[in-house]
Amino acid sequence: MAQKRVYLDYAATTPVDPRVKKAMDPYFSKVFGNTMSLHSFGQESKIAVEESRVKVADLIGARPEEIYFTSSATESNNTVLKGVKGNIVISSIEHACIEETANWLSKKGVKVTRIPVDRFGKVNPSDVEKAIDSETALVSIIHASNEVGTIQDIKEIGRICKEKKVLFHTDASQSFGKIPIDVNEMNIGLMTASSHKICGPKGAGCIYIRKGLKLDPLLHGGGQESGFRSSTVNVPAIVGFAKASEIAKKEMNKESERLSLLRDKLIRKVLKIEGSFLTGHPEDRLPNNASFYFSFIEGEAIVLHLDFAGIAVSTGSACSSGKLAASHALLAMGLKHEDAHGSLRVSLGKWTTEKDINYFAGELNKVVKKLRKISPFKK
Amino acid sequence: MAQKRVYLDYAATTPVDPRVKKAMDPYFSKVFGNTMSLHSFGQESKIAVEESRVKVADLIGARPEEIYFTSSATESNNTVLKGVKGNIVISSIEHACIEETANWLSKKGVKVTRIPVDRFGKVNPSDVEKAIDSETALVSIIHASNEVGTIQDIKEIGRICKEKKVLFHTDASQSFGKIPIDVNEMNIGLMTASSHKICGPKGAGCIYIRKGLKLDPLLHGGGQESGFRSSTVNVPAIVGFAKASEIAKKEMNKESERLSLLRDKLIRKVLKIEGSFLTGHPEDRLPNNASFYFSFIEGEAIVLHLDFAGIAVSTGSACSSGKLAASHALLAMGLKHEDAHGSLRVSLGKWTTEKDINYFAGELNKVVKKLRKISPFKK
Repeated sequence: MAQKRVYLDYAATTPVDPRVKKAMDPYFSKVFGNTMSLHSFGQESKIAVEESRVKVADLIGARPEEIYFTSSATESNNTVLKGVKGNIVISSIEHACIEETANWLSKKGVKVTRIPVDRFGKVNPSDVEKAIDSETALVSIIHASNEVGTIQDIKEIGRICKEKKVLFHTDASQSFGKIPIDVNEMNIGLMTASSHKICGPKGAGCIYIRKGLKLDPLLHGGGQESGFRSSTVNVPAIVGFAKASEIAKKEMNKESERLSLLRDKLIRKVLKIEGSFLTGHPEDRLPNNASFYFSFIEGEAIVLHLDFAGIAVSTGSACSSGKLAASHALLAMGLKHEDAHGSLRVSLGKWTTEKDINYFAGELNKVVKKLRKISPFKK
Repeated sequence: MAQKRVYLDYAATTPVDPRVKKAMDPYFSKVFGNTMSLHSFGQESKIAVEESRVKVADLIGARPEEIYFTSSATESNNTVLKGVKGNIVISSIEHACIEETANWLSKKGVKVTRIPVDRFGKVNPSDVEKAIDSETALVSIIHASNEVGTIQDIKEIGRICKEKKVLFHTDASQSFGKIPIDVNEMNIGLMTASSHKICGPKGAGCIYIRKGLKLDPLLHGGGQESGFRSSTVNVPAIVGFAKASEIAKKEMNKESERLSLLRDKLIRKVLKIEGSFLTGHPEDRLPNNASFYFSFIEGEAIVLHLDFAGIAVSTGSACSSGKLAASHALLAMGLKHEDAHGSLRVSLGKWTTEKDINYFAGELNKVVKKLRKISPFKK
């Protein structure tokens, strides 16, 4: 029996766009040289990577030489946080790869200050200003929350950091390619982006580093990426990342409008369910993110039951799916432990249709009713 | 005019085997889930990665749970060296990613001891024994040289480390899949392997970590790879790496015999050129590596002139191709600066034919004659 399958977990990862796959294909077995090689096989690969750098830079108003390719957003974020000397300021709703790196740095003696957020997941820029002192080396605030989709006022935070002469980094893994980013207009000094969140391949990410800024490398070796990121350059993945960026630049506006409408429709349908609540900001949120909590039931149970119906959604970030602890981000937004446990993230993407939304809402309704019936938490 | 093209730089990187490409293909757009996701899309990916772990482990006699996937050998080597606490002992002919990481650690106060090599690039295991003291945390010796192909007596070095109760790591990037490796028989505690050196894709590598050994992670975050290597798991690259490992296991013996014969033929032809010398060990060398130096001429000039004839070779490691400094490895083997500058690495692989060897030898002969005529160094 062929089962209906509906993927609504685009925030975790995305299928590669067939146009991206097609762009990558020649770079496995035909154009395969090592970019560091002097001969023509190497130079062909080098040209492909440099052309890719232009495309990625183009999406965020950067110069090509300000883009440094890495293997992932996690690597980018680790590189930034570990690459500065001094104390750091982060938000209390960062992705695990900022949060855990900060914890590791804490143990090494780095002072980490966490900025609170309001109940919608918003950082107040004036809190950033207050947190900065003479020992602060870096402020790192996630652009859009991976869990609830709330978009921060990066421009204002960037302005404050500029004024205070402190490095400013934003993890734009979830926003890059989905909403407009201009690194100059938004006062961004350092930025992380990811390929596999925008229908590019896994295995590619980048750090935007504003010209003139310096970071210590995380990977030492052959001196690739202008000496900043050693390791054989992953040409096909980078070519795919660039193609996905190019497509995003062209289609972002239209796609963001389409997804916002679907998302709002989905939110309206879900909020009709008794004891369901929207998490994240009602307006300043990613066009593809709808997130909720349901009283008296566990998000994990919802995810597993929806999976039986062929629907893929998440409790929060994919990365912490294995963990049973409540999301630190949701708790930071003031949710009670039991409510944070009832969280559900629905994330839409390129192949999401209205039919998918309707199917999801219908199945969710059934699942919630079923789980409430057997809930040990319900009064 | 379609030019003849002969790739003899397999030690730098390799084209992806079409069977590997075919194995990877479904994992871009069809099976694309995040391995950390609870739903079926995620679980399908997870299963593919766990099956891959079995295949990679199988090639080196390890258990699947002892294999930790990374994005590259450089990342693996950085992780190992930075993941231990204490002083380290390395050879003087390590790959740049060990050498440069060791230099970085030196600046952080770690004592790095470099073991000398003989003129064939061999480490004397008793020198390792002498170098170990009570503060030594790790010995890391490259299995087979990336420049001259010399194979070390890893089993004996491993035995010594075992006896001295010191962690032993070997960078097997060049040997993995080309010559037999058994981590148990060879007393290996930690090992680095790479995918793109064995006709697998770029973007995948691994660390073998013997059960019971502990390392600090290099990438912090979502807790992938049993908490040891955070970052979204690069499923297609890992599937490709595993397929390449599986093919290597099946075909290694026959292929190594075929390549050794071709290599020896190539060496005989090259050594007929006046003022040409073999570098590396005459017997204990990789089946696919032939390396030389030529008096009075620059290796780089040879590489560029051969490139005009469509032939891809290297001066040494691809990673240091951009640098004009003489190879530290060749100098450690006792070569004079001017001879080290005349170095040439020819590395064979799956698609190398006898015709390629003949074409290469003929063109090299012409190039050397031409360059000698204009050499400013010749007496």
